Amino acid sequence: MTSADVDTGLLAPGWTGSPAATATSDHAYLRALLDAEAALTRAQAALGLVPAGAGPAVTSAADPAALDVRSLAERARAGGNPVIPLVSDLTEAVGTEYGPYVHRGATSQDILDTATMLVSARTLDLVLADLGRTESALAALAAAHRDTAMPGRTLTQHAVPTTFGLKAAGWRSLVLDARDRLTVVRSGLPAQLGGAAGTLAAFTVFGAADPQALSAAYARELGLREPELPWHTLRTPIADLAGALAFAAGALGKIAADVLTLARTEIAEVAEGSGGGSSAMPHKANPVRSTLIAAAARRAPQLAATLYGASAGEDERPAGAWHAEWEPLRDLLRLVGGAARDAVELTRGLRVDTDAMRRHLDLTHGLIVSERLAAELAPVLGRARAKELLTRAAKRVYAEGRPLGELLAEEPELKGLDLADLTDPTHYTGSAGALTDRALERR
Amino acid sequence: MTSADVDTGLLAPGWTGSPAATATSDHAYLRALLDAEAALTRAQAALGLVPAGAGPAVTSAADPAALDVRSLAERARAGGNPVIPLVSDLTEAVGTEYGPYVHRGATSQDILDTATMLVSARTLDLVLADLGRTESALAALAAAHRDTAMPGRTLTQHAVPTTFGLKAAGWRSLVLDARDRLTVVRSGLPAQLGGAAGTLAAFTVFGAADPQALSAAYARELGLREPELPWHTLRTPIADLAGALAFAAGALGKIAADVLTLARTEIAEVAEGSGGGSSAMPHKANPVRSTLIAAAARRAPQLAATLYGASAGEDERPAGAWHAEWEPLRDLLRLVGGAARDAVELTRGLRVDTDAMRRHLDLTHGLIVSERLAAELAPVLGRARAKELLTRAAKRVYAEGRPLGELLAEEPELKGLDLADLTDPTHYTGSAGALTDRALERR
Amino acid sequence: MTSADVDTGLLAPGWTGSPAATATSDHAYLRALLDAEAALTRAQAALGLVPAGAGPAVTSAADPAALDVRSLAERARAGGNPVIPLVSDLTEAVGTEYGPYVHRGATSQDILDTATMLVSARTLDLVLADLGRTESALAALAAAHRDTAMPGRTLTQHAVPTTFGLKAAGWRSLVLDARDRLTVVRSGLPAQLGGAAGTLAAFTVFGAADPQALSAAYARELGLREPELPWHTLRTPIADLAGALAFAAGALGKIAADVLTLARTEIAEVAEGSGGGSSAMPHKANPVRSTLIAAAARRAPQLAATLYGASAGEDERPAGAWHAEWEPLRDLLRLVGGAARDAVELTRGLRVDTDAMRRHLDLTHGLIVSERLAAELAPVLGRARAKELLTRAAKRVYAEGRPLGELLAEEPELKGLDLADLTDPTHYTGSAGALTDRALERR
Amino acid sequence: MTSADVDTGLLAPGWTGSPAATATSDHAYLRALLDAEAALTRAQAALGLVPAGAGPAVTSAADPAALDVRSLAERARAGGNPVIPLVSDLTEAVGTEYGPYVHRGATSQDILDTATMLVSARTLDLVLADLGRTESALAALAAAHRDTAMPGRTLTQHAVPTTFGLKAAGWRSLVLDARDRLTVVRSGLPAQLGGAAGTLAAFTVFGAADPQALSAAYARELGLREPELPWHTLRTPIADLAGALAFAAGALGKIAADVLTLARTEIAEVAEGSGGGSSAMPHKANPVRSTLIAAAARRAPQLAATLYGASAGEDERPAGAWHAEWEPLRDLLRLVGGAARDAVELTRGLRVDTDAMRRHLDLTHGLIVSERLAAELAPVLGRARAKELLTRAAKRVYAEGRPLGELLAEEPELKGLDLADLTDPTHYTGSAGALTDRALERR
Repeated sequence: MTSADVDTGLLAPGWTGSPAATATSDHAYLRALLDAEAALTRAQAALGLVPAGAGPAVTSAADPAALDVRSLAERARAGGNPVIPLVSDLTEAVGTEYGPYVHRGATSQDILDTATMLVSARTLDLVLADLGRTESALAALAAAHRDTAMPGRTLTQHAVPTTFGLKAAGWRSLVLDARDRLTVVRSGLPAQLGGAAGTLAAFTVFGAADPQALSAAYARELGLREPELPWHTLRTPIADLAGALAFAAGALGKIAADVLTLARTEIAEVAEGSGGGSSAMPHKANPVRSTLIAAAARRAPQLAATLYGASAGEDERPAGAWHAEWEPLRDLLRLVGGAARDAVELTRGLRVDTDAMRRHLDLTHGLIVSERLAAELAPVLGRARAKELLTRAAKRVYAEGRPLGELLAEEPELKGLDLADLTDPTHYTGSAGALTDRALERR
Repeated sequence: MTSADVDTGLLAPGWTGSPAATATSDHAYLRALLDAEAALTRAQAALGLVPAGAGPAVTSAADPAALDVRSLAERARAGGNPVIPLVSDLTEAVGTEYGPYVHRGATSQDILDTATMLVSARTLDLVLADLGRTESALAALAAAHRDTAMPGRTLTQHAVPTTFGLKAAGWRSLVLDARDRLTVVRSGLPAQLGGAAGTLAAFTVFGAADPQALSAAYARELGLREPELPWHTLRTPIADLAGALAFAAGALGKIAADVLTLARTEIAEVAEGSGGGSSAMPHKANPVRSTLIAAAARRAPQLAATLYGASAGEDERPAGAWHAEWEPLRDLLRLVGGAARDAVELTRGLRVDTDAMRRHLDLTHGLIVSERLAAELAPVLGRARAKELLTRAAKRVYAEGRPLGELLAEEPELKGLDLADLTDPTHYTGSAGALTDRALERR
Repeated sequence: MTSADVDTGLLAPGWTGSPAATATSDHAYLRALLDAEAALTRAQAALGLVPAGAGPAVTSAADPAALDVRSLAERARAGGNPVIPLVSDLTEAVGTEYGPYVHRGATSQDILDTATMLVSARTLDLVLADLGRTESALAALAAAHRDTAMPGRTLTQHAVPTTFGLKAAGWRSLVLDARDRLTVVRSGLPAQLGGAAGTLAAFTVFGAADPQALSAAYARELGLREPELPWHTLRTPIADLAGALAFAAGALGKIAADVLTLARTEIAEVAEGSGGGSSAMPHKANPVRSTLIAAAARRAPQLAATLYGASAGEDERPAGAWHAEWEPLRDLLRLVGGAARDAVELTRGLRVDTDAMRRHLDLTHGLIVSERLAAELAPVLGRARAKELLTRAAKRVYAEGRPLGELLAEEPELKGLDLADLTDPTHYTGSAGALTDRALERR
Repeated sequence: MTSADVDTGLLAPGWTGSPAATATSDHAYLRALLDAEAALTRAQAALGLVPAGAGPAVTSAADPAALDVRSLAERARAGGNPVIPLVSDLTEAVGTEYGPYVHRGATSQDILDTATMLVSARTLDLVLADLGRTESALAALAAAHRDTAMPGRTLTQHAVPTTFGLKAAGWRSLVLDARDRLTVVRSGLPAQLGGAAGTLAAFTVFGAADPQALSAAYARELGLREPELPWHTLRTPIADLAGALAFAAGALGKIAADVLTLARTEIAEVAEGSGGGSSAMPHKANPVRSTLIAAAARRAPQLAATLYGASAGEDERPAGAWHAEWEPLRDLLRLVGGAARDAVELTRGLRVDTDAMRRHLDLTHGLIVSERLAAELAPVLGRARAKELLTRAAKRVYAEGRPLGELLAEEPELKGLDLADLTDPTHYTGSAGALTDRALERR
């Protein structure tokens, strides 16, 4: 490996430079691996299984800066995981006296799985903070635009009016759903300790009267949950992360999908606070944040699929299924971490053009409230006659380019109706306001 | 469409004929669609929005047997969903007086999403029952084999001993994890009611002072949760189903993966109760139940990915993302339903050959306890000398085909040790028993 | 199984009722399974391995109408595939004399894989025909609109002008790419014949001097390619189908994505020939064909992933990987078959509003040609000055709502330029016409 | 970004340090991006569109070592792609005179897509070389073991005998299939040149009489295929790469799946040349190469799915679909590149234990040839009687643990038969040898 092999995020504007990128870097994994090793020795020291001095000795040697991560990466190939060379280097760094107490009784997977949980926990904390910022921004948008009418669009076509407040409240409810799911997963991330085949047998040999107590002490040292069973091949924590992260990507992806639609040149009801430039066209202001979030949302489900698929691994440690988890889980953490960062910026900076929204409500010349008219005219004219009249009027609207209200006003049968009210799109937003209020009560 | 187009499950031995198959059939969906329509009318009647007679009239007409599901399927093409022709047929079946109250104020997605939740709820109840049966069978296996030692295998190779009890307890913990996740999802499945663009506007026109009360009444009629917001494009319930079902498939898939390994001709530590035959080889007893579960586990993650990906749909109803959910969600329900059925049969009928397990513990001539010996000999001989001696002995084991214990007995340095005990694989199962006990306490 | 378990396509408006649906039905698979069995007996008869009468006897008995597909589906569960009960029923139908020559020497996978190839071949022929119709329609659109200028859009924003002709030519090139890839795959679909473990051993026992000659004769009977090797676990044909079908779905999906964008109420540059209705809003004309194609494009990649993943199966017949192929491959054939049907209708009926395209070119008040102006003004004013002037003008365009050309005309430095020409978007379509011409030369 | 954010491959023992890793590093992409920029300027110089000196000037400045890749990665975030800051830096590096000719007329996607094709081409050349080495090793194995009988296994159970030669020949045919598909894709990788929206319009302004000639010259400079059309949103090359790479991963994954099975402690018919060690168990020799290949095969299909899904992007440049391609394509190249490297080592070093294979043929006490006996005894005893006798004998085999041949020898009806021959598994390998010979003829 030469320096040319190092990745700096050139192909990943979506997450490069984000807090999640730092929290999931090789360096962060190295730190977490060392944290796991040190915690294991300390836990054994606390239970009197190793000399008291071993804990501080290993903890002090477990310094990422003192190890060569690139060399570890290269040497990981022989045995297929980075813990093998790591144990070797750490043991040497600890020195003769306490070296033998490094990694004692553990298997590589104990350390790598635990490190993965630490990295996940640290990254999720960052993600949750950004989701919190995002939901605040969305709450403000929803409240501010509680009564801002805009076209509701289904299958790409104007349907009936809605409000931007309801839309923002819906986005926020997704962000809260993501927060809730990630919070549950975050709080349950377990340490891993099982030894060679998940029986904790070596610890018994090394004197542990109750290896499960060691497991508990180890988890406490790490701030992780004590597992009920070693989960080398019971991959619930991985699957739970996969699901919650894929959901979060989709939740943010929904916001991005809407912003990308509403930011189109022809629609322009919203714009990103600071659009991205173009190398060729100086006037363009691209919705870059949404674009990058959308890209993350396109990738996350398949990464989650790989992780779900890895659950069905054979034996006490599968040959491949475990190894297939490492990069995809990190990718998911990064993608969601980057998307959450972008979501904060997107939602805080979003510019809303309420005039455009109002203007577009008239694009269909009143047909956007045809549902309402059908309902209102039926009792007056009879259902069949109302439908006939509306269908004819709708055709004339397009043919003559005249507003529906104007055409209906010519109908003698409708003289007594307040057509101005009935055809005002801003008067047909139903429970949008009340729904927004209710949704905003959720904390 | 001719009768030739009907699917009967010919390519799906994994789920054909299962309760979940019946619960997810076109007929079951039709019933659920009609249940949703009838509940909507009844809820409106209860709130006085439609004549009292409309509720019974629609409920009585909403009879799957009275409708032609094939015709509905064909006619669904024009508008892209089956609710449009359904409303037409149902309205006609209800007749002139109450026909106008069919589907009043609703949009197709209200009905189809609600029906999907009903079908999901009904299917999950069946799945949960089968998971309950499976965990019982596994609890019995784990208890019965609490102390049955067998080789622990990692990366396909014998590592250290474990017990079949611990393995079965681990399988059970996955089944319980699946049960818990599906139970949470099941209990939260919401009704869907939003009207054309999710504002409930039409219901206001039809006289609802508080459309959210209608939403609540509708949910109550259906036994589903009242949604906080219409979720036409807030697809949390779909994503939650996707994740929990993919997890369940993986959980059962882990069991299948292990059984398939342990049932190999060379291993034969377990066998399915009734293996499947072969068209060419009369003697074969294939592990068919595991095979079909494994096939389901290979498919579920990608189906879930499609559902997670559908979350990021644009607007108030997306053009494609929604439609892409229907078949994959049903496929997931079926695959998991079929796998759960097979898991009951598999775990109840599993034959365990404890002799084979015991025999295989000797396949490595004692090297399966080399971890233990390294730990036990180090204090006696010093770490370096112990390692050297063991490495040399290990080579001789394979070269000479003699047991490790026998070779070590020739070493004068080890005279005082109880080598018979130290090299007995059944004495090196660590906390397997205690872990099994603890795991079985979980209910 | 009751009649309630039968699927009629209720959830699948995208493919129900299509020719591909018929070609991939259970009935079609049953026919193909029987075709394979009959061809095998005939091939053996031709080589003198079975009595001459066996060929006609089996062929005549191999009548799908005479077998109960539902019963086969149910009984497939025991052994995990439908061929086992099929052989039993077919043997009985053939009768005592020639019954013993049914399936002689074959394994279930020989028959099911061969049937899958037959079904695939028959379905691909239909798909290829529809792709041919689609590319013709697109060729006509491209030719007709060779010089129809419209906004080119990148990252949702107007960039520089393009033509609808070039867009349609691009769509067509994707359809031709799909056609070419499917044609290659179609022509290489192999028969499958290997016997129990792929050695053709049983055929030798039954007297075949050269079992490979039997394989060749069998393939000839079926109109399939003779395989170089039995491919029970060499799944190239499946992977090739997966890739080509996923590509085709994506190719049609690209067309749908563009139509869905261009058909938006605010854009309305194109419309489907006959939009789908809405259950709630009589005026809506939804782009249903594009919606259903888009839904197929969302699902196909993950189905292909399952098939690619099935390649890595163990042994001479894997326990699960093979079984996981059956439904996803059929789903892919159906989705692509349905999407191709819809693509014909979509492209033939597409209505193009050239006025709207022209009108939208002015939406940015001339900024859509800012790239051109930057290039043209640089030699006149110097690069820096040109950029400065344009940036300032661009700001004024939005602030004052005045066309760029008008603003530039006020600049004394630009007096000599033909600004009317330089700012005419229809004069800045570059090589769009020539590229369209070139693309249309491809056959 | 700090140095802590740099990835060195710690989580990727499957591809870290491989030639493909170097060929796909950020540095390699940077080089390719610069190659594309330089080629574009040179091509324009060749056509007289820019001063002759611009070509050498840009080419000389386009030195990866002179640019700060990390800074580029960070600054890519603003506009969402790395070409924007790259053009800025390169322009500055080229200097005042020729700086204006950097990137002239191009769009970011022209450069990034072209660079992606260059990186893909360079990586595929490495992959193809490793596939060539792998197929040679497999050809040697197949030839050496043409007649080495071993159990054929289906659904995990012994079925009938096969040969290791046929198995190796099958593996090789998959490798050749992968080679052929990758070779086709490799040879068709196109340059990308379209300008802002794919019309090549800017080049016309800059004086190109025939922009397509520029496109051709550009492609020649790069050694890539000239595209028929700009393919900004016609993603055939990406989809083709996805499919061929996913196939290659599956092809190698099949080999790995078989090796992992055959290397199991209980089977041990093959072993990797140098197994990987374990951190806890000194005696273990894990099949690490196969494990890492298997892990790659588990991930590749879902990465390909993301790429196939990206085909359906909207407009002249999609907001997200394009960006979602970058990392997954690189991941695929790396995974396949790493797997191909491991496959060379795996197949060259594979140790085959022919004694174990022979021994295992007797594990079923002769039942592995029951298919043959059924066929051979039927003409002697009649079909029904033969079946009955065999079924009974099979039961006794397991009950009494005696070989089938011995039991049959006790049957008076079978006196005249050469039971030693009929029950010799090595005499029932059918056409395995001939098939191997034929397969090895393929080059």
